[in-house]
Amino acid sequence: MSKKLTSRSTDYSKWYNELVVKADLAENSAVRGCMVIKPYGYAIWEKMQAELDKKFKETGHQNAYFPLFVPKSLFEAEEKNAEGFAKECAVVTHYRLQNDPNKPGKLRVDPEAKLEEELVVRPTSEAIIWNTFKGWVQSYRDLPLLINQWANVVRWEMRTRLFLRTAEFLWQEGHTAHATKAEALTEAKLMNNIYANFVQDFMAIPVIEGVKTESERFAGADETYCIEALMQDGKALQAGTSHFLGQNFAEAFDVKFANKEGKQDYVWATSWGVSTRLMGALIMTHSDDYGLVLPPSLAPNQVVIVPIYKSEEDLEQITEVANTILIDLRKKNRTVKFDNRTTHRPGAKFAQHELQGVPLRIAIGPKDLANQTVEIARRDTLTKETVHLNDLINRVEALLEDIQQSLYNKALTYRDSHITEVDTFEAFKTALNDKGGFVSAHWDGTTETEDKIKELTKATIRCIPLENKQETGNCILTGKPSKERVLFAKAY
Amino acid sequence: MSKKLTSRSTDYSKWYNELVVKADLAENSAVRGCMVIKPYGYAIWEKMQAELDKKFKETGHQNAYFPLFVPKSLFEAEEKNAEGFAKECAVVTHYRLQNDPNKPGKLRVDPEAKLEEELVVRPTSEAIIWNTFKGWVQSYRDLPLLINQWANVVRWEMRTRLFLRTAEFLWQEGHTAHATKAEALTEAKLMNNIYANFVQDFMAIPVIEGVKTESERFAGADETYCIEALMQDGKALQAGTSHFLGQNFAEAFDVKFANKEGKQDYVWATSWGVSTRLMGALIMTHSDDYGLVLPPSLAPNQVVIVPIYKSEEDLEQITEVANTILIDLRKKNRTVKFDNRTTHRPGAKFAQHELQGVPLRIAIGPKDLANQTVEIARRDTLTKETVHLNDLINRVEALLEDIQQSLYNKALTYRDSHITEVDTFEAFKTALNDKGGFVSAHWDGTTETEDKIKELTKATIRCIPLENKQETGNCILTGKPSKERVLFAKAY
Repeated sequence: MSKKLTSRSTDYSKWYNELVVKADLAENSAVRGCMVIKPYGYAIWEKMQAELDKKFKETGHQNAYFPLFVPKSLFEAEEKNAEGFAKECAVVTHYRLQNDPNKPGKLRVDPEAKLEEELVVRPTSEAIIWNTFKGWVQSYRDLPLLINQWANVVRWEMRTRLFLRTAEFLWQEGHTAHATKAEALTEAKLMNNIYANFVQDFMAIPVIEGVKTESERFAGADETYCIEALMQDGKALQAGTSHFLGQNFAEAFDVKFANKEGKQDYVWATSWGVSTRLMGALIMTHSDDYGLVLPPSLAPNQVVIVPIYKSEEDLEQITEVANTILIDLRKKNRTVKFDNRTTHRPGAKFAQHELQGVPLRIAIGPKDLANQTVEIARRDTLTKETVHLNDLINRVEALLEDIQQSLYNKALTYRDSHITEVDTFEAFKTALNDKGGFVSAHWDGTTETEDKIKELTKATIRCIPLENKQETGNCILTGKPSKERVLFAKAY
Repeated sequence: MSKKLTSRSTDYSKWYNELVVKADLAENSAVRGCMVIKPYGYAIWEKMQAELDKKFKETGHQNAYFPLFVPKSLFEAEEKNAEGFAKECAVVTHYRLQNDPNKPGKLRVDPEAKLEEELVVRPTSEAIIWNTFKGWVQSYRDLPLLINQWANVVRWEMRTRLFLRTAEFLWQEGHTAHATKAEALTEAKLMNNIYANFVQDFMAIPVIEGVKTESERFAGADETYCIEALMQDGKALQAGTSHFLGQNFAEAFDVKFANKEGKQDYVWATSWGVSTRLMGALIMTHSDDYGLVLPPSLAPNQVVIVPIYKSEEDLEQITEVANTILIDLRKKNRTVKFDNRTTHRPGAKFAQHELQGVPLRIAIGPKDLANQTVEIARRDTLTKETVHLNDLINRVEALLEDIQQSLYNKALTYRDSHITEVDTFEAFKTALNDKGGFVSAHWDGTTETEDKIKELTKATIRCIPLENKQETGNCILTGKPSKERVLFAKAY
């Protein structure tokens, strides 16, 4: 194994970058800002996908697939959306390469093969999808349309980081069309809540559900719901968003329907998405200086069994025991691997599984054989215990459940102890700089003040929590009256 | 429902295009040559994906994800591969749009935001993946690398058709690296065989496993294995390919490993893929003039239950019976839907399910209630039978199995009756034009002759079957000696 990770206290950012690469989650590619998601990282993403996909389908959504490219004229149809994404668009201008006459063996863009209209590589798919919905909706009978797409998107970010901010990323984007405003609002809130439950129950990450301020809204939305998480370094991370789009896209793409009374009306819309950015949230919420820590629900291998032996005879006996454990755990739908590689010593295997966050490690040595025991090590607490084979399966089940819950509780305790209420701008700056985390403060409701606070402190309003206590007060910057606190933080 | 499909005998191509759209499988988009895969079509593709993914994982492959873009300098590294795809590449040249100063509200490509190096939208991922593998392989211990990717790719086709030939399509591409030539060859053959079994057992489409001639090989491969199917109009369709890439990509990207003796050697490679083109094969193999016909293994709904009623009281009783059937069939892992929409009459529902290829339709009316029966209609044979409720579940199970097998047998009978052995060029042309299908003929083994035959007849060599009888003869065009027959056909 390679040498130890940089510790979080030494350099949090370096710790993160090293961990992502050394735990075999992802790496940078030859393409600026684009990552390679390695098999171990992709296996975790697949588990997220499977669970989310199930939740979407249970709530009546269907998957479909829309083109990667958006013709420029469609892209610019919804003006706010276009303006929001124009500065980070990869643009296809040509459709052919040819041999470079000046450089034998090299290719160049064929100047004859210029597209009449440039194609934008989708940064999000509202434009192409609403142009399609136009053909799918005539009457109220065609509504609601509840569509989801799993896809890659491209946003040309200047400063990129593995999983957190990459030029290309993987995501799902839901796009729905409704007959009424109320129904669309309900959908937007429902999906935000599905995200919240998924992230909390499945990823063991506590989140705050809220709405964005106008300046932090999705370009083209009338309201953006969000879930906000807190990382171990005190910075917030937006883990998912769900947008109520009003009739903006319906108007831009002329999508009307005949209602029950036969009158024509524009359709109401939502869109919502989570991305491989969640991998970053997962890593930064639970991991430690020894490497990745995974909640059992997301671990490609929940349990790994490592044999410790000198003789072939010992290995044979250990293998027999291990195979019984494998069968019993698989009956319980647990993922378990017997790491009997002969190319690595037990110490190297221990280090690798620790680095890769396998929740439970079972070691079996000759003494264990004699005593009918095994040694179980928990990745989250790094504690060990000896368990009799008769009790093993129940113990593993209990430990996996405990790990899932403990990780959530630990993250919740950290998060809750990092929400600081302040009433002055001085206290605000102190909380932000000395302690980090969310700062709960009164704000006068204007974009101007929000911008000014951001300029002075780098903190943004992460959200106005959905279940917010109504409490009068005065804006920390301007002193103007306010009727509720909002959550500020520095954010990823 | 809309009016009837054009019949296959009237215009096969028109029948196909109409069917794809009317059965809600896919439609053309605003982007030239790119399709929208609609929810019903995507649900079928998801079933294909799930089964293939399972087969890949069972044989030790892992999923990963590599960038959408390939820098031009990497793209051109393997010369044959680059040459093969250069003419159909979408190329990203800019990374930003800006407001068009001449047209208010419109955008234009920002001339300042030109990329230093153009990015090719992947037509296939060997280049970017082998550039990555370079960092993953040092020693024989790192081999084999068995990687698969589910992704979208873009090939700028001039003449496109839904599913069969689209500028963007979805596929999986396997990329593996091995220590020896023998191992890589075994892998390429294994994956071709996995494709063959999948297409035959799961899609009910008979295929011939074979190898391509040099001129039909994948650009950059030393050998291309393939599976070839036959459509109802007598044209062949290449349903999947698996390539033995030799050391070509390892040499181009300098991917070496230390073998057990410590010597450096280039790695051996394979790549293999199937795509949404399989949807086209599925449609064209089984469907009829009434619409889509689906094998039960791929049907989003294997059974649909339609209530026929006049009074609300009848509906209540029918619903009770239907719910029992739903529960019982779901226990058997069958997908079944109770179509109790009040917006459509039974006749319209029947027509829709027929058009969309639901394998079994169960109708329940008031008389059925009295007699404790239902009416079952088979989509493939369009036959109906009345079944007592006591026998229903067993009968449905038996029918679904029979449909799966019957569809395969029917396609096999058609295929086998459309392989014609000929020994003269006149007979060759007659077989090709009057009967269609595969024509089995002797060929002198030269690309020159192959090209000439293609020029004269539009027929290409689809493959040299893997289990080919060795039989001396004379080339149908040149009369030169040949030691085995090859399969010609006009192809999609």
